[in-house]
Amino acid sequence: MNFKMLTNLRNEKPLVHHITNIVSINDCANITLCFGALPVMSNSIDEVTEVVCKSDSLVLNMGTLSREQFKAILIAGQMANKKNVPIVIDPVGIGTTTSRTKRIFQLVNTIKPSVIKGNAAEINILAGRKGQIKGVESLGTYHNIIDTAKLLAVRYECTVVVTGQVDIITNGIETYLIDNGSIMMSKLVGTGCMAASVIGCFLGIYHNQIDATLCAVVSYEVAAELAAERIDVKGPGTFKPALFDECYSLQAEEVEKRAKIRKVK
Amino acid sequence: MNFKMLTNLRNEKPLVHHITNIVSINDCANITLCFGALPVMSNSIDEVTEVVCKSDSLVLNMGTLSREQFKAILIAGQMANKKNVPIVIDPVGIGTTTSRTKRIFQLVNTIKPSVIKGNAAEINILAGRKGQIKGVESLGTYHNIIDTAKLLAVRYECTVVVTGQVDIITNGIETYLIDNGSIMMSKLVGTGCMAASVIGCFLGIYHNQIDATLCAVVSYEVAAELAAERIDVKGPGTFKPALFDECYSLQAEEVEKRAKIRKVK
Amino acid sequence: MNFKMLTNLRNEKPLVHHITNIVSINDCANITLCFGALPVMSNSIDEVTEVVCKSDSLVLNMGTLSREQFKAILIAGQMANKKNVPIVIDPVGIGTTTSRTKRIFQLVNTIKPSVIKGNAAEINILAGRKGQIKGVESLGTYHNIIDTAKLLAVRYECTVVVTGQVDIITNGIETYLIDNGSIMMSKLVGTGCMAASVIGCFLGIYHNQIDATLCAVVSYEVAAELAAERIDVKGPGTFKPALFDECYSLQAEEVEKRAKIRKVK
Repeated sequence: MNFKMLTNLRNEKPLVHHITNIVSINDCANITLCFGALPVMSNSIDEVTEVVCKSDSLVLNMGTLSREQFKAILIAGQMANKKNVPIVIDPVGIGTTTSRTKRIFQLVNTIKPSVIKGNAAEINILAGRKGQIKGVESLGTYHNIIDTAKLLAVRYECTVVVTGQVDIITNGIETYLIDNGSIMMSKLVGTGCMAASVIGCFLGIYHNQIDATLCAVVSYEVAAELAAERIDVKGPGTFKPALFDECYSLQAEEVEKRAKIRKVK
Repeated sequence: MNFKMLTNLRNEKPLVHHITNIVSINDCANITLCFGALPVMSNSIDEVTEVVCKSDSLVLNMGTLSREQFKAILIAGQMANKKNVPIVIDPVGIGTTTSRTKRIFQLVNTIKPSVIKGNAAEINILAGRKGQIKGVESLGTYHNIIDTAKLLAVRYECTVVVTGQVDIITNGIETYLIDNGSIMMSKLVGTGCMAASVIGCFLGIYHNQIDATLCAVVSYEVAAELAAERIDVKGPGTFKPALFDECYSLQAEEVEKRAKIRKVK
Repeated sequence: MNFKMLTNLRNEKPLVHHITNIVSINDCANITLCFGALPVMSNSIDEVTEVVCKSDSLVLNMGTLSREQFKAILIAGQMANKKNVPIVIDPVGIGTTTSRTKRIFQLVNTIKPSVIKGNAAEINILAGRKGQIKGVESLGTYHNIIDTAKLLAVRYECTVVVTGQVDIITNGIETYLIDNGSIMMSKLVGTGCMAASVIGCFLGIYHNQIDATLCAVVSYEVAAELAAERIDVKGPGTFKPALFDECYSLQAEEVEKRAKIRKVK
């Protein structure tokens, strides 16, 4: 793994277009900026196609979903596909409600994503299997989750990321497990959304999906470890600013030293 | 008062559905998570009835109010009433504008709340008395505010919370004054909204309204005291992450030790 | 320059109405509160005219722009003009898309602003010249930017602020350059939006546009310097709460001591 991508990201400053939820939109913009990319958070149906044409990647997050925003997501996604702008899809809370589930399936069946990122329950449900969601949290255990992720990666010809204590990254052929990260991430709202933003940053400069995704996830999780270890971090409240700090000052060497990546079959 | 509820909250992880304003939505989600409950922030008219059916409580905050969001609030509230999901209503800025005042009255006259929480001016105006609001801040002094709160509690058969330097909690029969808290809370946007979220958390596991509300408010205010006392807190900016930290690590024993509750007639 | 305005602001607590984007709305409300003013963030078409009539200033930010929000901006702006409520316009991302550019021109040609604040590219584009925007960031160098700012100030009979490493403030007659601030401001989302909020605070109590704007910008930038110098600030994440702290505790004497203002022709 070449973590020099992190350095390139700061030099190239790709433009990462987000159409995202109103809960973590500020955090997603800030994490993008901390990694050296430029965020643009336009969700207006009147301008998303134009914005996406100027962007290096597109992050589509289904967290809070009005009808108008869903329309904007669809037209931006179509334009991104047309212009070969890589797309990250975050199927937040799929399975929670009928309309949300239906819309997320409509999205992945209309738009070709580069990366789909979700927790274990979301990925299972998206694969047509059973999953238990409480709000946006994954409950239950999913024994065949690696196979499910692979199946989904093959079906949608994309890279699939399953976030959790151990993260799974697969394109159906190569599969990696990541043991980095911190329990603090689950105590803070929006850490999953921010993971999608970080993947969007790396995809914006590097079109090898699996490598860009791997580098993004490992970098983000190493930054989270560094943040959680800081003596000025005393809980989820102070973890949050520390996470932004550590993403901002993260060095490729540090990521390389701490990376815990296992290649599996 | 049995503050063990705080421990139960973390074990039971109730799902707290919020339909809230775009200003403090991230803070409300984070405070809910810090107290050990799970937030779900869905405001889409296409899914709120389904979300509320799966939720343990519903927090309705009238801070920023589009027509569509108000519709979502009404249908979610009706479903919550039907399914016995306890509701917290936060009549933010009632009295500021005609349409806001009218909508808030329509809400409380259509939906049966478990708890209404507001500042002194908001509670006075909701009771049909005079109140002076500047933006969302309560101005003036309200000498009969305890009686006004009781009257409102009796009228709507609910618990009423009046936030301020001294908080009032009443169900019309029992009335308590809380002397906990910190001046820092008034220097930070969204501390009132977060109070409603915390009440929603406790109502989600404990249906005795007055006890759940009392425990919620005292716990939150004690956390605020602990945050304000920290040496790393140097103003409202650093108070905010400290508040989340302290809510997250708050112990029932600490709340019990610091609680300043006076029962009044 | 009389920085005692800062003290007056805290005593008079003007009400600053914002119609702003969903990315930095929480930050704008908090910075307003930190400077001692009261924020009201109403964007509902059903109440903005009423809110603006009670307000001391109006901040219009075009960051995320739905059709409904644009309507709200226009009617609020018209009422503000009618009632002599000073307006700050922040033409965020003008030039990024056709619809955004068109709407911002429609706004400045319909509504009379007191202050227009943008980065160099935004001000250049608004003046009908060429500018290079990437997302909302200004790229390129603008050699005649002072003249462009003056031209715009004369055209719209208002004060123009160009933010950057050196800030420019001009009403077309008097022109000032400000050398205060911190590089950290460019690493944090929303610092430009917050600058507009702070200008709104000072305009709310002091109708001499150029003086109020100068005092606002210098105060904000000195607070940023103080924040960046703090030993507990280790990156953009911890810079953010420190910035709020320093705005909150900022003293007129400190601003006076640190102010780096150059009057130019």
